[in-house]
Amino acid sequence: MADAKIGFYYKNVCEDVIGEEHGITPQQFDEMAQETAAATEEVNRHREEGLIPYRDLPYNEAYPKQVKEAAKAICGSCENFVVLGIGGSALGNIALQTALNPYLYNLDPKQRKGPRLFVFDNVDPMQFGSFLDWIGGGLDKTIFNVISKSGRTAETAAQFLIIRQMLLDRLGPEGYKKQIVATTDAQAGTLRTITDAAGFHSLEVPDGVGGRFSVLSPVGLLSAAVCGIDIDALLAGARAMDRRVSEGDFFANPAAVNAAIQVHYYYRGKPISVMMPYSYALKDLSDWYRQLWAESLGKCRDLDGREVFVGPTPVKALGTTDQHSQVQLYREGPNDKVYTFLQTEHFGRDLEIGSCPPEAPELGYLAGSGMGKLLNSEKLATEYALVKDRRPCLTVLFDRICPETIGQFIYLYEVTTSIAGVLFHINAYDQPAVELGKEATFALMGRAGYEELAEKIKPFTCPDQKFVI
Amino acid sequence: MADAKIGFYYKNVCEDVIGEEHGITPQQFDEMAQETAAATEEVNRHREEGLIPYRDLPYNEAYPKQVKEAAKAICGSCENFVVLGIGGSALGNIALQTALNPYLYNLDPKQRKGPRLFVFDNVDPMQFGSFLDWIGGGLDKTIFNVISKSGRTAETAAQFLIIRQMLLDRLGPEGYKKQIVATTDAQAGTLRTITDAAGFHSLEVPDGVGGRFSVLSPVGLLSAAVCGIDIDALLAGARAMDRRVSEGDFFANPAAVNAAIQVHYYYRGKPISVMMPYSYALKDLSDWYRQLWAESLGKCRDLDGREVFVGPTPVKALGTTDQHSQVQLYREGPNDKVYTFLQTEHFGRDLEIGSCPPEAPELGYLAGSGMGKLLNSEKLATEYALVKDRRPCLTVLFDRICPETIGQFIYLYEVTTSIAGVLFHINAYDQPAVELGKEATFALMGRAGYEELAEKIKPFTCPDQKFVI
Repeated sequence: MADAKIGFYYKNVCEDVIGEEHGITPQQFDEMAQETAAATEEVNRHREEGLIPYRDLPYNEAYPKQVKEAAKAICGSCENFVVLGIGGSALGNIALQTALNPYLYNLDPKQRKGPRLFVFDNVDPMQFGSFLDWIGGGLDKTIFNVISKSGRTAETAAQFLIIRQMLLDRLGPEGYKKQIVATTDAQAGTLRTITDAAGFHSLEVPDGVGGRFSVLSPVGLLSAAVCGIDIDALLAGARAMDRRVSEGDFFANPAAVNAAIQVHYYYRGKPISVMMPYSYALKDLSDWYRQLWAESLGKCRDLDGREVFVGPTPVKALGTTDQHSQVQLYREGPNDKVYTFLQTEHFGRDLEIGSCPPEAPELGYLAGSGMGKLLNSEKLATEYALVKDRRPCLTVLFDRICPETIGQFIYLYEVTTSIAGVLFHINAYDQPAVELGKEATFALMGRAGYEELAEKIKPFTCPDQKFVI
Repeated sequence: MADAKIGFYYKNVCEDVIGEEHGITPQQFDEMAQETAAATEEVNRHREEGLIPYRDLPYNEAYPKQVKEAAKAICGSCENFVVLGIGGSALGNIALQTALNPYLYNLDPKQRKGPRLFVFDNVDPMQFGSFLDWIGGGLDKTIFNVISKSGRTAETAAQFLIIRQMLLDRLGPEGYKKQIVATTDAQAGTLRTITDAAGFHSLEVPDGVGGRFSVLSPVGLLSAAVCGIDIDALLAGARAMDRRVSEGDFFANPAAVNAAIQVHYYYRGKPISVMMPYSYALKDLSDWYRQLWAESLGKCRDLDGREVFVGPTPVKALGTTDQHSQVQLYREGPNDKVYTFLQTEHFGRDLEIGSCPPEAPELGYLAGSGMGKLLNSEKLATEYALVKDRRPCLTVLFDRICPETIGQFIYLYEVTTSIAGVLFHINAYDQPAVELGKEATFALMGRAGYEELAEKIKPFTCPDQKFVI
């Protein structure tokens, strides 16, 4: 079982399959190979220089040990495990849970090996209120894992202050602290200060690792371990992929080939990158990828300070569901997208499609077949239809869905993003545009020192005119 | 309570707000007004000619009566209500449930007035298998609502054949038929034939109404009514919107203004249309809209048969969640998107943010405030930041989220789509591109008569080469 792998299949972007106008020619591939081999080398150099510590997370021995110890302590007494976080402090957790635990994990006690898991990455009073109504008296059997490097992210801070108040009121100052685990900076910051003062159990958000690259640190590992996911196998998968994506030979390096193809199409009229898993379990990996790709590559300035306003738009889709929603557009609309299918060769199980009622022989072709065969046939059929319309298609093929292959996938896309960042000649690791919105929120919430900004915002936001009712 | 409304706010697409290059000038608005008033008239004429019967669904008196009767019969004996459908037979049902029932409806018996609801719109053996494991012996307390106009949609047919076999094996030929309600064509087709032979209770999929326009028919209404949603109020909301969107005066017609703005931007370098609700409850309306918009407007030929390959790409996002995922790209990436925020002025409830620990005074601005205020402040802050970067922003503002306003929203976007179809000069009501994929699926599943196609597909799908492992 240890040799489960993912493969990257790119035949259906080639000129001989989808034609000269939209396909990639052998000559183009050779040019891409040269440029991208250099980009891969640069990423490898960044790693050696300690600039991208996310690359070494799969080799960290302290983190999984700490995480497993914390998980063990938590599992005994806990019926509900609640992550309070947003962005990189939530999307990885959600993706791992959907990928590696059963669909009805939360609803069916027989299908889970740990507590129920909730991940709240919003500040919606209706949604969060519904949860609080339900959790009611069960607070003492609920662990809240608040995740924030600084502790100043408004959404996570707001959630935390509500939960903290509630726990204090119900359980008192000694009882409440047992219900909170903080994942935060090891040394400094708002949440670190609160954690040290209150005596919460805590884990570390590593330095120099942006949220979107942090799933293989305690940020993403704790909820996974608590819910029975084999985090050692996950990390082993990432290490196995590391060997492949560090490879200097372009055509043997799936991250290099993937990055090169994505960047190639971005500059040739295909600024939209669709990820379409044919597996419900893989669906939230698309959402994780969507942050990784958008926040890393959407940049207005390049490394030389020139205005570029660059960045592909990632779109998440789901097969077969979106065949009945998006495929009409994908086939007949503008040829402005590159498609990446995620497919698994083996499902952990299959369901036999029952016999066909005699009055409906037209359904006979389904009877006795497996649902998994149908799902994979639909994928191939959709890909065939797209290719016939000269749309470029890639596939990440999973032997099966397990911690090893999920770890490989995560690491593959992280390194693909780093290489694409070099090819775009931008900084893939910052997110400067998030700042103004944060300040405007402070202003609108009446924070002292932001009065002037609050005045500036008023005319943009008041529905006084150009309003159709 | 009957006067809850939605408004459409478009000031932040205007030239005086976001500048000449990306904003719409008064002169452009006047030109759009002329063209779009004519398009609105044409849509009104299509309605009078009986070409778009979806427009009259809110006035149908038989459907809500039949649906409420069926719902009443179901609710007594049923703990789980399961929709088997895909595309337009699923997305509306999901959107209504998320919008109008509590977040933890399925998990918390105290929060629901009807059975648990599951909507399966895929053929994933792991996902569906998890459900079957859970439902186990409770099959006799579960009603399956299979929804398909023809009954030949492969996904729905496969689900149905599995469930039918299971029910037959457990409950026998007399017992099993009580657990199935079919929503299908009134006269003909595979599912109608099966339904009549087996004696299932059935409801009608209206003629001439495509799946994506069918949510206000029995297709979408039954699961809503069963789960305690006031479908009369929903339909009343749609009727209230009908008066506004039939309006000849462009500037008083929110569907006309919306369609005109969307089409304007499509042809001016903004082919991506993002819908970003700031409310968890509204999030699946984006997914419903995504089908409506993509399948209706993504067309390769116009009404004169010319090749056009037209169609905006709808993207669903969610505030505040995606501020920490997509907003970096939205602000600094290419200015190739038009943004539509959904916002609710009043939440049915609010949560007070607790007091601030003394060691973290920097969070003091949050303490004592409401979570709803924070959510709406984040929306305004994000909009302000986008507008500062000259990105066009629209808002649909809900007084509050209730069946009346959801009915208004649905009807607003359906008619917006019809008007946009006229402006694009395409047929908004067909989906020809879905056919080839269906046939390819038949071929891959070994259906008789498709052997030649199966041979053709082989070379495109076999991962024999261009494969990085």
